[in-house]
Amino acid sequence: MVLESYVVVHNIAKRHNVGTLARSATAFGVSELILVGRRDFNSFGNHGSSNHLRFRHFHSLQEARQFLKDKDCDICGVEITHDALPVNEHPFKKSTAFLLGNEGSGLSSKECEICDFFVYIPQYGCGTASLNVTVAASIVLHQFGVWAGFTERSRDGNKFVVAERPVKQGRRNYCTETEDSIIEERRARRENSANGFFGETESGNSSANLLDALFVDG
Amino acid sequence: MVLESYVVVHNIAKRHNVGTLARSATAFGVSELILVGRRDFNSFGNHGSSNHLRFRHFHSLQEARQFLKDKDCDICGVEITHDALPVNEHPFKKSTAFLLGNEGSGLSSKECEICDFFVYIPQYGCGTASLNVTVAASIVLHQFGVWAGFTERSRDGNKFVVAERPVKQGRRNYCTETEDSIIEERRARRENSANGFFGETESGNSSANLLDALFVDG
Repeated sequence: MVLESYVVVHNIAKRHNVGTLARSATAFGVSELILVGRRDFNSFGNHGSSNHLRFRHFHSLQEARQFLKDKDCDICGVEITHDALPVNEHPFKKSTAFLLGNEGSGLSSKECEICDFFVYIPQYGCGTASLNVTVAASIVLHQFGVWAGFTERSRDGNKFVVAERPVKQGRRNYCTETEDSIIEERRARRENSANGFFGETESGNSSANLLDALFVDG
Repeated sequence: MVLESYVVVHNIAKRHNVGTLARSATAFGVSELILVGRRDFNSFGNHGSSNHLRFRHFHSLQEARQFLKDKDCDICGVEITHDALPVNEHPFKKSTAFLLGNEGSGLSSKECEICDFFVYIPQYGCGTASLNVTVAASIVLHQFGVWAGFTERSRDGNKFVVAERPVKQGRRNYCTETEDSIIEERRARRENSANGFFGETESGNSSANLLDALFVDG
């Protein structure tokens, strides 16, 4: 069974959170970051598109749900509901999309409706009601990767190797660098641009890459 | 065996990172956040001290190491060294302090010298060389809590319960609210203040609480 993970964000407001989230998503082999909802939430300014992560946009949660169901994906809400399962027990069955709520209020009832099940991250201290949304997402993606047995990225010294040019993320969540992958990436970049995620001045200049810009300050 | 966790940060530069780190530390039952190094790295402005997390300062890594060894703590570097163990395999033996490096360069050789062992977080994608430092720390603290079997904090609806007033973090990493704890907390706050972590205008006004201020935007 080929296992994949997706991240679905609905109206996440803070650009810093989307950037850190994208960084974790690439680290943990996420296939696509799916943005749902109002267009203005999905603009990252004019920083150009990511070369390492596929973005997709839907206007409604139902459209996103249908897309994921066509791929035979479970939809897992990351929320502390009464029936949520602890993420460290790996309550996964197959490819899974993780739905994250807005920073302030968590998942709404409409968001909860499209979820097949929920996971939460156990907390032990008394000083905070919940975790930062990108921290919570990262822990969940980490645990899914452990459960799925994804292949580890190779390392160079104390860092994981970053692909030097646009690469295709393979179906099994590791990266290949082929002619085909470059063509595929260009297609994806055109799509991202056509979807209006990255503004109209998108130049394709890798130094203006959204993730490059966000990752240097981590 | 009473198990505790500590976080040791050495010259972490970005205030946003320290704030998110503190939030995760309280969520995962960390006993103390230990700040090592130059004083200017340890100033969070005039936001007042945290009521929910104990801070401690040392001038040198060796002093921090001695403090932790007196507590019979392992010191675990969070770094992708050649002999680092995957954190999801829970390579822990007893109470552990997690040493985090600076955002840009990771752990220095001096920092590595005080570590008993290293853990890393497996990555699968090709888009980033490493994780955001607070994301990495949060995943490690989550996995330590799972291994240690810390008692889960009680919940109210979809949130973990936040203590309403200063509380003492108990030795077993859950919180108690007693007269003693309030006295103890006041003592800790005086100490934090005397250590100069939070500037001289520290007012004790909870609305100026560092963590309160940082947690609202998560």
